[in-house]
Amino acid sequence: MQKKPTFCGVIAPVLTPFGEDGGPDAERFVEHCQWLMATGCTALAPFGTTSEGNSLGLDERMELLEELVDARTMEPAKLMPGTGTCALSDAVVLTKHAVDLGCGGVLMLPPFYYKAPSEEGLFRYFAEVIDEVADNRLKIYLYHIPPVAQVGFSLSLVGRLIKAFPDTVVGLKDSSGDWNNTAALLATYPGFEVFPGSEVFLLDGLRKGAAGCISATCNVGAAAIRNVYDNWQGPDADKLQADITALRKAIQAFPMIPALKALIAHYRQDPAWVKLRAPFVDLSTADADKVIRTLADAHGFKLDFAQAA
Amino acid sequence: MQKKPTFCGVIAPVLTPFGEDGGPDAERFVEHCQWLMATGCTALAPFGTTSEGNSLGLDERMELLEELVDARTMEPAKLMPGTGTCALSDAVVLTKHAVDLGCGGVLMLPPFYYKAPSEEGLFRYFAEVIDEVADNRLKIYLYHIPPVAQVGFSLSLVGRLIKAFPDTVVGLKDSSGDWNNTAALLATYPGFEVFPGSEVFLLDGLRKGAAGCISATCNVGAAAIRNVYDNWQGPDADKLQADITALRKAIQAFPMIPALKALIAHYRQDPAWVKLRAPFVDLSTADADKVIRTLADAHGFKLDFAQAA
Repeated sequence: MQKKPTFCGVIAPVLTPFGEDGGPDAERFVEHCQWLMATGCTALAPFGTTSEGNSLGLDERMELLEELVDARTMEPAKLMPGTGTCALSDAVVLTKHAVDLGCGGVLMLPPFYYKAPSEEGLFRYFAEVIDEVADNRLKIYLYHIPPVAQVGFSLSLVGRLIKAFPDTVVGLKDSSGDWNNTAALLATYPGFEVFPGSEVFLLDGLRKGAAGCISATCNVGAAAIRNVYDNWQGPDADKLQADITALRKAIQAFPMIPALKALIAHYRQDPAWVKLRAPFVDLSTADADKVIRTLADAHGFKLDFAQAA
Repeated sequence: MQKKPTFCGVIAPVLTPFGEDGGPDAERFVEHCQWLMATGCTALAPFGTTSEGNSLGLDERMELLEELVDARTMEPAKLMPGTGTCALSDAVVLTKHAVDLGCGGVLMLPPFYYKAPSEEGLFRYFAEVIDEVADNRLKIYLYHIPPVAQVGFSLSLVGRLIKAFPDTVVGLKDSSGDWNNTAALLATYPGFEVFPGSEVFLLDGLRKGAAGCISATCNVGAAAIRNVYDNWQGPDADKLQADITALRKAIQAFPMIPALKALIAHYRQDPAWVKLRAPFVDLSTADADKVIRTLADAHGFKLDFAQAA
């Protein structure tokens, strides 16, 4: 394949802020998206795992996406919202909606309720979504995250989907945490846009043809990750990669989503940002303080919200 | 607790038929519900695991339920639809809808995308659903099916929910397949309406205070299961139980949902019934024939649709 990639670079699965009423907070969401793009992200993936995306209702997802597009602060082509759900028909609704808003792609989980589905069954799920959305603007990124979804994409299923839908199934986010799987995808399907799900694998990935990374940590550390992406062929690449790897490991010593929200709340001086939706629980003040202290002490880590638009 | 139970007896998680267009087939669905009630079910649980419930969209579930209630062939009080989803807000929508239609209860999965949630997080999910539905007609049955959902209900979480919401959280379907768990629930929370998820545990369950069973096999074998329920204190109870256990084991030697649909399709002489929604795949004709042959040969098993209304 010698096509211009649809997405590349540093992509944040956008954290979802919640308001006092427990619903998603569209104003803070749009503000966070703007800040992410201003601080190094090349594109955004709302409604991923880090976004508590599967804890959001269909209407909530569609309304947030509309608010973001209506704010006109970024091109919809740079949005890759999560639209895969257990129910084929709900996935069609969300996917159609995203395409109609001009989103450049969608990041699709496989149906993940029923465990150990057959490869044929998963293939048909995607074939039916593509058939029902019936729009050649649709670009699907497969979301492979077996540690959470349990159901994933085998190398052979990916190959079948690429072969059957070469202009539609264009990439994959690999959150397996298994570098061998990422390397196998890159070696087997050149031109397919593979994004490791952690910046720990960014430099190794780029050297083997990865398109960038889609990583939770981009919510707070996009600038440094972007620096690796922009300079991966430069003399300092290994040093820059070592720095972002160290920060990632420091952050993931805590529960990832609560820790990221605690960081944003702290540096933005906006306590509302710590809120999570059940089944997640907000960090206690003491635990949030520990996150801030540990990261500030060990890494001099801070966030500059003056960079926001 | 000395309350009249809300549900008891033999409850089928109703199979969902699909039409040529891939959507749920409301006419066949209502017909099947009528037949199930005519052949021994005391109540119905649409949109469970056997129903491919998590493969149905929100709108599809609500429309099917409305069709069934509108058909006026059974009391809505005898319906316990599945309304638990990964997203709290979607669960609220489905639960409110079911209560407004007069359903006697709802069968709620925990949010199952994020794995290993805290007990506190799961407690809050249910507390928020109950708070937002805000209707004292709401009766929740917890749906414990860790082999599929992965996320389940610990004995202590069940206790917390009963204590906090004694008039709302009234029962549980135990599809753990672990008799010790069922026995522990029955011993710890007398009066709580516990339904084993398989009729294999029906007699043992009834002897320890279970309310009945909610089982996939009720879609084809309700009469015999009802016979155990009605005669569990009689002299033939063990013999009757042995028969339904043998049939269950014969059926579950095949993939359960496709096998049940193949049986219905065969005995109803209605090939449309074999259809499954992705990620499930229809049985091949050869495999469907094997299901029929094996069950007919070994168990003289047949279905009499003349019993339908």
